[in-house]
Amino acid sequence: MAQKATIIVFSGDLDKVVAGFILATSAASMGMEVSMFFTFWGLNVLKKEGGLKKSKGLMRRILNIMNRGDMNRLPLSKFDMFGIGRWLMKKLMKESKIPTVEEMMTMAKSMNIKIIACTTTLGFMGIAKEDLIPEVDALAGAATYLDNAKDSNVNLFI
Amino acid sequence: MAQKATIIVFSGDLDKVVAGFILATSAASMGMEVSMFFTFWGLNVLKKEGGLKKSKGLMRRILNIMNRGDMNRLPLSKFDMFGIGRWLMKKLMKESKIPTVEEMMTMAKSMNIKIIACTTTLGFMGIAKEDLIPEVDALAGAATYLDNAKDSNVNLFI
Amino acid sequence: MAQKATIIVFSGDLDKVVAGFILATSAASMGMEVSMFFTFWGLNVLKKEGGLKKSKGLMRRILNIMNRGDMNRLPLSKFDMFGIGRWLMKKLMKESKIPTVEEMMTMAKSMNIKIIACTTTLGFMGIAKEDLIPEVDALAGAATYLDNAKDSNVNLFI
Repeated sequence: MAQKATIIVFSGDLDKVVAGFILATSAASMGMEVSMFFTFWGLNVLKKEGGLKKSKGLMRRILNIMNRGDMNRLPLSKFDMFGIGRWLMKKLMKESKIPTVEEMMTMAKSMNIKIIACTTTLGFMGIAKEDLIPEVDALAGAATYLDNAKDSNVNLFI
Repeated sequence: MAQKATIIVFSGDLDKVVAGFILATSAASMGMEVSMFFTFWGLNVLKKEGGLKKSKGLMRRILNIMNRGDMNRLPLSKFDMFGIGRWLMKKLMKESKIPTVEEMMTMAKSMNIKIIACTTTLGFMGIAKEDLIPEVDALAGAATYLDNAKDSNVNLFI
Repeated sequence: MAQKATIIVFSGDLDKVVAGFILATSAASMGMEVSMFFTFWGLNVLKKEGGLKKSKGLMRRILNIMNRGDMNRLPLSKFDMFGIGRWLMKKLMKESKIPTVEEMMTMAKSMNIKIIACTTTLGFMGIAKEDLIPEVDALAGAATYLDNAKDSNVNLFI
């Protein structure tokens, strides 16, 4: 039986998302079955560029204006300073030949890493299925995550 | 033997605490034995409304003024903006029929989820047993947590 | 076969680092084989006092000025307020006889806890081997971490 790893990507911060993808792709390259479960701010990684298609009520519109962004526009958890920090980190990653989040997503998909979006948080944040990038394999809830995690060797919450 | 899950709730942020309770109650509803270990800022979830009974020295008083709050007054990890963000999130959770933290705690207790408060951090933060809500099952240290975690299928640090 | 625990220290915040060391030393004192894998901001714990020896390009210099610090100068994740919060927390920890990070590192080493620095993040942050404290046992990547974690009872991402 293959060894397994699951990663919950709760954070939408560039540095944490990059850590998640490095761990996920490393695990997959070692032959592990890997799934990444994106929830809360981590859903920003899965949002299409250009904002949500439909707005559903004033409060969700406000949330989505504050929480705008996609995999190419994630803030840094520290020293972001209105974008200077993330710009700096992207530059340094590029110089060190670390793939971008977009490239990591492509790698992840080619390695059969399952990309899952959390239904519960999609719902209350007002993000619809059509707002998500096609790389998403499934929408699922905590039960699906746990069913997977209980047989996994490594489970991380990022 | 029942499958087990442990969740360390280090964070006292509303969004992370909600994620912790959703995972914990989902695991319990799947028949897993679940314990939640609250430590550091996560202890705010377990504090009674209205602040601490006794103050123990100036520095602890300062800490507890800065770190005031209970399960109904947790800030958001992002976009809190002096309370606007948390207000917005609570509204959206309610609209989506996601239980409040208070309701999740009641659910957790009815599902036999163990609610544990970390003795070490209680001590240095100056929080006494009588400052905690009655839902707390035990005060315990890292050794108790680890003893539990080493036989668990899923261990998360939130 | 000994039971094992791994802790990824992604955060460089005093409170999270302390939580990591308390868990690690407790696990070791229970006879578990423990490794701590420091990455991203967590690398600050492993940096020698006094800043990096060589600077490598303007952008890394800027990053390292923003991200200066060592195990004795870690900020708090909340209420840091330009150093007041961390000063307060250190005072309270001392009063409660909780060891400092420096003392915890010494304890960890005496308990055979493996201290590992992440090569990938060292590289892009421009931190060289000679910038690290001698307590570091190895520089290694995600594959080494995962190889360890897949046989461990407890894996946490802090």
